[in-house]
Order: sequence, then structure tokens, then C-alpha cells
Amino acid sequence: MNSDRREPAYLLTEKQVADKSEIARRFLDTRTRLNGHVEKADNFLVKRFYNLDHNAYLEGSLPAKYKELMGLVASTCLRCDDCIHYHIIQSYRLGVTRAEQEEALNVALIVGGSIVVPHLRCAYELLTELYG
Amino acid sequence: MNSDRREPAYLLTEKQVADKSEIARRFLDTRTRLNGHVEKADNFLVKRFYNLDHNAYLEGSLPAKYKELMGLVASTCLRCDDCIHYHIIQSYRLGVTRAEQEEALNVALIVGGSIVVPHLRCAYELLTELYG
Amino acid sequence: MNSDRREPAYLLTEKQVADKSEIARRFLDTRTRLNGHVEKADNFLVKRFYNLDHNAYLEGSLPAKYKELMGLVASTCLRCDDCIHYHIIQSYRLGVTRAEQEEALNVALIVGGSIVVPHLRCAYELLTELYG
Amino acid sequence: MNSDRREPAYLLTEKQVADKSEIARRFLDTRTRLNGHVEKADNFLVKRFYNLDHNAYLEGSLPAKYKELMGLVASTCLRCDDCIHYHIIQSYRLGVTRAEQEEALNVALIVGGSIVVPHLRCAYELLTELYG
Amino acid sequence: MNSDRREPAYLLTEKQVADKSEIARRFLDTRTRLNGHVEKADNFLVKRFYNLDHNAYLEGSLPAKYKELMGLVASTCLRCDDCIHYHIIQSYRLGVTRAEQEEALNVALIVGGSIVVPHLRCAYELLTELYG
Amino acid sequence: MNSDRREPAYLLTEKQVADKSEIARRFLDTRTRLNGHVEKADNFLVKRFYNLDHNAYLEGSLPAKYKELMGLVASTCLRCDDCIHYHIIQSYRLGVTRAEQEEALNVALIVGGSIVVPHLRCAYELLTELYG
Repeated sequence: MNSDRREPAYLLTEKQVADKSEIARRFLDTRTRLNGHVEKADNFLVKRFYNLDHNAYLEGSLPAKYKELMGLVASTCLRCDDCIHYHIIQSYRLGVTRAEQEEALNVALIVGGSIVVPHLRCAYELLTELYG
Repeated sequence: MNSDRREPAYLLTEKQVADKSEIARRFLDTRTRLNGHVEKADNFLVKRFYNLDHNAYLEGSLPAKYKELMGLVASTCLRCDDCIHYHIIQSYRLGVTRAEQEEALNVALIVGGSIVVPHLRCAYELLTELYG
Repeated sequence: MNSDRREPAYLLTEKQVADKSEIARRFLDTRTRLNGHVEKADNFLVKRFYNLDHNAYLEGSLPAKYKELMGLVASTCLRCDDCIHYHIIQSYRLGVTRAEQEEALNVALIVGGSIVVPHLRCAYELLTELYG
Repeated sequence: MNSDRREPAYLLTEKQVADKSEIARRFLDTRTRLNGHVEKADNFLVKRFYNLDHNAYLEGSLPAKYKELMGLVASTCLRCDDCIHYHIIQSYRLGVTRAEQEEALNVALIVGGSIVVPHLRCAYELLTELYG
Repeated sequence: MNSDRREPAYLLTEKQVADKSEIARRFLDTRTRLNGHVEKADNFLVKRFYNLDHNAYLEGSLPAKYKELMGLVASTCLRCDDCIHYHIIQSYRLGVTRAEQEEALNVALIVGGSIVVPHLRCAYELLTELYG
Repeated sequence: MNSDRREPAYLLTEKQVADKSEIARRFLDTRTRLNGHVEKADNFLVKRFYNLDHNAYLEGSLPAKYKELMGLVASTCLRCDDCIHYHIIQSYRLGVTRAEQEEALNVALIVGGSIVVPHLRCAYELLTELYG
């Protein structure tokens, strides 16, 4: 897009993550299926928003892995399970360790409070499937 | 209620919408079943709130169809799938086109950001069932 | 923890509530299962947060039953079904009547508006199973 | 409104609270001035909503003082300084102690997390003016 | 941007609105001053987001005036005074009547609940300055 | 607290930041003054929460500077100007560059949408004072 941004170097494909975790597989399959309805609609503004969204997490001044963890913190504070799953998977694909994921979730727990806890539980279930 | 408000002229019944879309049918059935518990409780304040809620979407200075789309924008920004389904169905019953629904969802997407996207996907799935 | 706080005197165990309500059973089972993942992780900050969370609802200057109802109001305004289920169950275990639960839900409905209604419906379904 | 609800027995008038606390005075004056614009508009639905809102905090199955504290918890979790001021003042007028106000704020802090802290600070400033 | 979107036909300039209302003037001046800091930074992604944001409110399948009112409803539910001021001013510039603004605010009040009321008061103060 | 966490190595004191930026000075002064009311109250649970909050941003598996930026993203998505100011200042004290701060704000803008923009403007004003 612009010169100082570039695609992150993923260590794993989405498929490899899906092969490791049933939760990840179900999430990715549903996401793909539903995105099909959005893509078919071919809405101009939605496509541009998706493009901007993609751009925000590219390698830049900040390493992509920390941006994904920022996305995870935001998603957890705003309490969206789908977004939490997505950013845990993306972080995992970028080599983020379990300890790093937990520390990011801790920031979200403190900022967002106990209303975040039900989402934290689901996040930990996914962490268990991914990291064992 | 007061003289300048009146019931909107729906082009379709809820049943006709349910016959067209399986998502709409499931949503409407569950809503009816759960509302049964609320109605049976016969709570004075809840009944008055439901009445006010109904009143807010009547034909008035603003056409009912735009009020339903405002309800859709609010529901999408506040990220409530049930409310999104409800206002898409109500708008559909009032003859709102798919392009109009998508433009309202675009306002919600820009105001509310990517945290809205998982709800946008579900909204588009329902739009596909309703408008083909 | 500190001298002026003490455990509430529950009139019923969680198991007794689960025996009375299928919704409560499913909620409590899922919560226990998912908490297993959190406990196994043994994250220092999460454990301390859970401890603080427990502390906030103990008998103190305010009776525990009103604190649980405050938790219910907060959970309903913030629209978390799991948290709503939890505080309805805890209130029930402390002898809160159905009329008291409904009045707390009314405060939440007025503060939080119609976006709260889908969660209110689920709350009333649980109230019906618990109080008949 | 209906037979089982009645006005709470306030121990203090709003004016007496304003005489005690400069923060309370400024809040109450601004609120009165701005409500003047709303009242002059004489909007049917707004008036009915204000009436319902008033009704939700009356003495009922739950004592009014606990309902005001529930309003305080909800306002703090939803992070509205005006609403926090209002419910602290109302609770104070009903004889709620400082220890009770702090315990209600603790529930809100745990549920809502550190994002609540800036509002907690303002709440404590008002508590200091009211209770010394 | 794309062929089916076009700039709305404003009946008034921002300056004409500022000449009519002191609240509008202060808001617009502060907004311009602060936007100066954003513009000077010349951040690629921010500029693209601003562009998308502008695009979402253009004349399209939905008339621009209803899109501005949708922005008003969303801003009121999400409780942002700046955004409320902005969309009231934009709607006013497009010829929206006071009755229409009030009905949009009513939808937001019902969806968002009493936590919206402090923002409703400020909205009505601006309506009074604009419409007399 | 526990062995693998330690205080970050700040490059600047709060006072040095206040000397550089008038916005930072006002924010820090107000924060200190209001925290005085909280500290004087000596509330057990609040003190423990403050302690946990402090703990969440220590050096650990994640460098403190990225945790502060995560706090910034969360604060921006949840739209709290005080929290935004705080985390920008803390990040600045840890040597975070302006480009890094902007990229974190971009993640927040995309996740949180245009409702975030008024807070983004204030953030950029502070960035201008700090980085020139």
C-alpha cells in the first residue's frame, strides 16, 4: 500500500492452525462462509474498510505481532469472542508465545474488568488447544 | 398514542418474512417464545417500556422506514445480533431496498469500526436470504 | 480477607440450583469446564483478579444480596448473558425474591434501554425456571 | 403510579446537599438549566421516558436506597460522570453511609475495570465534600 | 468517489450555523483547531479513514439528511457529545426540521436508555440555539 | 511482586514530561489531586485494584513499552481521554517514538471506528506537544 508497510511473515497458515485446534477450525470455517455473503454483495465502502483494516496490522514501525496483540486487547475489552479468536490465531501464526498472549489478556482484564471474564475463559480454552 | 403518530403500513407480515428466510424464522420463533416469559410476568414497568419502544418507531415526522434503519444503525453500533435481525426484518417489511439496508449498515460500520464486522457478516447473511 | 468482610450465608448450593433449572445447570457446567482452562494456566494476575472479584461481593457494609443484585444490574447494562445468569443464580441462593430480581432488572432496563431487552428476555426465562 | 410503589422519604433536600458541596451545587444547577431546554420542548416520548425513569427508583420490593446504589453501579460501569454525581447525591439524601457508597463503587470498579478509575476519582472527590 | 454517490446540497455553510449558535461556533472552532494537529501529522491510514467517513454520509440510495440523522442516533447511543453536535449541525445544514431531529433523538433515547439523558440535555440546548 | 516482573526503566520522570507539555502537566496535576481523595479514603479493595493495575504494565514476557501501547489502544477504543493521556505519557517516558504511537492509535481507530475520532484529535494534540 505505502512503502513502509509490508505483509507479516506468518510461520503457519490458517489451515495449519485449524488442523491443530477444533475451535480455530470452526471459527475460521464460519468466518469464511459468512464473509462469502459480504464478498458477493461487493459493497464499495465495505471493501475499502476491509482494505484499511488489513492495512492497520501490517509490519510497520511496530512489529506485526504486537499489533495483533493490540487487536487482541481491544477485542477483549470490547468483548467480541470472534475478534478474540481471530487475533489469538493471528498472533499464534506470528510466533507469539502463550506467556505473551496471557500478558496481553491481563492488560485487557485489568482495563475491562470482570465483565471480560467470560470471554477470558473462552480465550484460555483456545490457548489450551493451540499451545497444549 | 398521540395524534401525530400512527402504525406503519407494513407490506409483509412477520409470517411472510419467516416463510422466505430460515434465519428470520428462527429469530422470530425464539423471540416469541422468550417474550412469552416476559409477558407472563406482567411487570408494570416492562410493559410501559415496551409500549414506549413501540411508540418510538411509529410513522411521525420521520417516515417509519427511516426510523427502522436508525434502529438498525444503533443496533449494529451497539453490536446486538438480535436487534440487528429485528430491524432488518422490520425494514424489509416496510419495503426498504437492499441498497438502502447496506448504506445504513455502512454508516454503522464507519461509526462503530471493525468490532462491528462479525455482526455485519451475520447481517449480510440475512440480507442474502431476504433479497436473494 | 479483612476483618469486616465475611462469606455470605447461602441458602442453597449451586447443585441445588442446577437441579431446579436446566438453564442454570448448563450455565454452571460450562462455566466450570471453561474455568478449568483458566485454573490450569495458573496465571498470577488472573488469580489475584478472581480473588478481588470474590471479595467485592462478600457481606460488608452492604448485605451480600444487594451486592449480587448490583452485579446483576451492571451485567444487564453491559449486556453479558453469562454474568446475568451468574448473578441471578447467586441472588437466588441468597433468598432474593422474584419481585426483587425484577425490580433490579427494571433499573437496568431504564438505564440501559431497549438494547438490553434481548438479555432481559433470557433473564426472565431463567427466573421462570427458578421461581416457577 | 401503581399501588405498590411510593416516593422515597428523603432526609435532605437537593438544596441542602448543594449547600454542603460545591461540586453538587454546580452539577445540580447545570442539570436544572439544561433540563429547562428539554422541558420547554415538551416532547411526548421524552416526558414519558422521564416518568418511567422516575418510577424505576421508587420504594418498592427493593428499598429506594439500594435502587439508587444500583443506579450508581450502572452509571459507574457505563462511565457517566453526571449520572454518578446524581446517584451519589440521591443516595446521600436517603441516608446511605460513605462506607455503603464505597462498597457499591467497588462492585462497579471490579465489574468495569480500570477504565472506570478516572470516574472513581471524581466520585471520591464528591464523597469527600459530602461526608467530610 | 464512485458514480452513484455525490456531495449533499447544503442549505447553509458551517459559518452560517456558527453565526446562529454560540455552542455550534465553539464546537466547530475547537474541532478545526484539533483537526489541524491531525492534518499536520499527515498519517496515511487516518487520511484514508477520514475519506471513508466522508463517503459514508454522501447522497446515495439513502438521502444524505437521513444518513446524518442515523449518525446522530449512533452518536447519541454511543454517548459522544462532539459527534452529537456534529450531526445535529450537519442535519440542520441539510434542512432537517426540529421535529425530525427530536424523533431521531427519541429512537436513540429508547435504544440507549437513561444513560443517554445527559447527552440528550446538551442536544436540546443546541436545538434551542439553532431552531429557537 | 513475583519474580519475573520488574519495574520498567523510564527514560523520563513525570515532571520532565510536564515541563515539556502543558496538556500533560494539567492532566498529571489533576490526576494527583483527585487521587489524593482516593488515597485518603484508604479503601482496601481499591488499593488492591490499583496494585494489580500497576502490576499489569510491568516488564514481563512483553516489554513494558508494548504493554503501555496496548493500554493506549484499549483506552482509545473505550474512549477515555484521561486514560489516553496517561498511556501516551507513559509510552513517551519509555522511549516510544511518535510513529509507534500513531500506529497504535491506528489500530484503535480501525477497531473502534469514527466514534473514536474526537479522542484521536486530543491524542494528536498531546503528541504534537510531546514530539514537536
